[in-house]
Amino acid sequence: MNKEQRFQKVAELWNANMPFNQLLGFEISRFDDTRSEISFHWHDKLIGNPMQKILHGGVTAAALDLAGGVVAAASIIANMEEASAQVIQENLSKLGTIDLRTDFLRPGRGEHFVASAHIIRSGSKVAVARMELHNEKNDHIAFGTGTYMVS
Amino acid sequence: MNKEQRFQKVAELWNANMPFNQLLGFEISRFDDTRSEISFHWHDKLIGNPMQKILHGGVTAAALDLAGGVVAAASIIANMEEASAQVIQENLSKLGTIDLRTDFLRPGRGEHFVASAHIIRSGSKVAVARMELHNEKNDHIAFGTGTYMVS
Amino acid sequence: MNKEQRFQKVAELWNANMPFNQLLGFEISRFDDTRSEISFHWHDKLIGNPMQKILHGGVTAAALDLAGGVVAAASIIANMEEASAQVIQENLSKLGTIDLRTDFLRPGRGEHFVASAHIIRSGSKVAVARMELHNEKNDHIAFGTGTYMVS
Amino acid sequence: MNKEQRFQKVAELWNANMPFNQLLGFEISRFDDTRSEISFHWHDKLIGNPMQKILHGGVTAAALDLAGGVVAAASIIANMEEASAQVIQENLSKLGTIDLRTDFLRPGRGEHFVASAHIIRSGSKVAVARMELHNEKNDHIAFGTGTYMVS
Repeated sequence: MNKEQRFQKVAELWNANMPFNQLLGFEISRFDDTRSEISFHWHDKLIGNPMQKILHGGVTAAALDLAGGVVAAASIIANMEEASAQVIQENLSKLGTIDLRTDFLRPGRGEHFVASAHIIRSGSKVAVARMELHNEKNDHIAFGTGTYMVS
Repeated sequence: MNKEQRFQKVAELWNANMPFNQLLGFEISRFDDTRSEISFHWHDKLIGNPMQKILHGGVTAAALDLAGGVVAAASIIANMEEASAQVIQENLSKLGTIDLRTDFLRPGRGEHFVASAHIIRSGSKVAVARMELHNEKNDHIAFGTGTYMVS
Repeated sequence: MNKEQRFQKVAELWNANMPFNQLLGFEISRFDDTRSEISFHWHDKLIGNPMQKILHGGVTAAALDLAGGVVAAASIIANMEEASAQVIQENLSKLGTIDLRTDFLRPGRGEHFVASAHIIRSGSKVAVARMELHNEKNDHIAFGTGTYMVS
Repeated sequence: MNKEQRFQKVAELWNANMPFNQLLGFEISRFDDTRSEISFHWHDKLIGNPMQKILHGGVTAAALDLAGGVVAAASIIANMEEASAQVIQENLSKLGTIDLRTDFLRPGRGEHFVASAHIIRSGSKVAVARMELHNEKNDHIAFGTGTYMVS
């Protein structure tokens, strides 16, 4: 498998096998080591504050955390030599979020949302990503910074 | 209504009317301005990583965010003179999370979880709370710091 | 005074009257509501770790905090009607950092450093800025996010 | 050297050889893996805002960062077998701050300050510490969370 095939393989696996992401309607819509994206649609079950009808802060944090985790995973995979699916899985098994900061900039209103991420520190043990959440009008709803264990 | 009655009233309202908290099985089990708590049970739908069977980071962040929001709400209500339900609602309508840091300390495993919060900065405009997530064995799973707009 | 004159006035006042910034050799080199900058030169007194000869983390945090505070101040001033020096001072007296996250991305080595900031949330009570520290080779040394009280 | 002797040795070395800490008057007053402390006295050169005569945010962040770094160093040393000064130095050479959150809770006023830290995550690669800054009246001035690389 070349790099793009590995990216595609892992994106498919994760989209099919992560219960909480499925519950929220999250889909990994771009899996790449330069920029990754998570897409989801508005649904009433995602409401935090019923009077204001805006996304729960936990939905925003979950989307940013996943986007950062995906770009960190892609940067691990990109640095691997050609590898079997099993070797990729073993390398990704060490991936985990160490800490996450979420800045809630504007009310979480909209019909369609995209959380995007890119890497700002790419180390052998730790990676740092910054993330943004936008709606279909390109309103900048939230900003995030996440530190990930990568080995 | 005295302070305890107001706390009880708002806890009941929030438990009955917040879709995302209901989706995740979150219950406000203590609503108090000195210490607030959110309780929830393990459920497979909360899994982030299917290979490790641990809570999704977004579940952890959502629980910490809610616990901090509840203790911030309680501190707003505690500082109010005797007030009608409507006045309480108006005051709480301004409540919102500005930013949230989540530290993922240990894998999110367990059967029952409690997120607790207390206030470390109580201002007229902004409150800061620190939060912890523990399981039924009292393992310290996560730590959080949240900044909340209170007026 | 027009906006640019007000910016210049405050930049001069702050550069002349902030003891800790002078101790570290910090200079406000750009005071603007779209992007602000702090400049400083390497000096051995700024060393944290003598074996590695890199900037102390506190120097990095101080530069990012100041850059964010300057762009938050500029956004306050930009929103004011034409105002006297005294009115400006009164408005800025409420400015303060609520919280600051600093990500240390690369070792703090170099001869000349610039911390830059711009606003990502501009509210009537709270502003959020993101900041970066670069050296003369444009290495990205640190990243920051700061929440500021603005009224 | 036993554990206490190793702690003492490193505390002496660091107090004597860290230029920025000396510039600010910081002293490691407790070097221990359960709780570490940094002490310093008020000095006008530490002023951030001359109108309010309070500590610069960078001083607060520097003290918290150092306190967290010291308790992380102590936890590395505590886990080592009996070791020579050189082996200790080699192990500590990998220590570094990955990220730091500082919450500024109250104005930094006082005559004498203590920053204290303890570990909330102790891993083989990464440690997380939480820190507090108090003055001589025990006012809680600031709170911090730091993530440190330990190997």
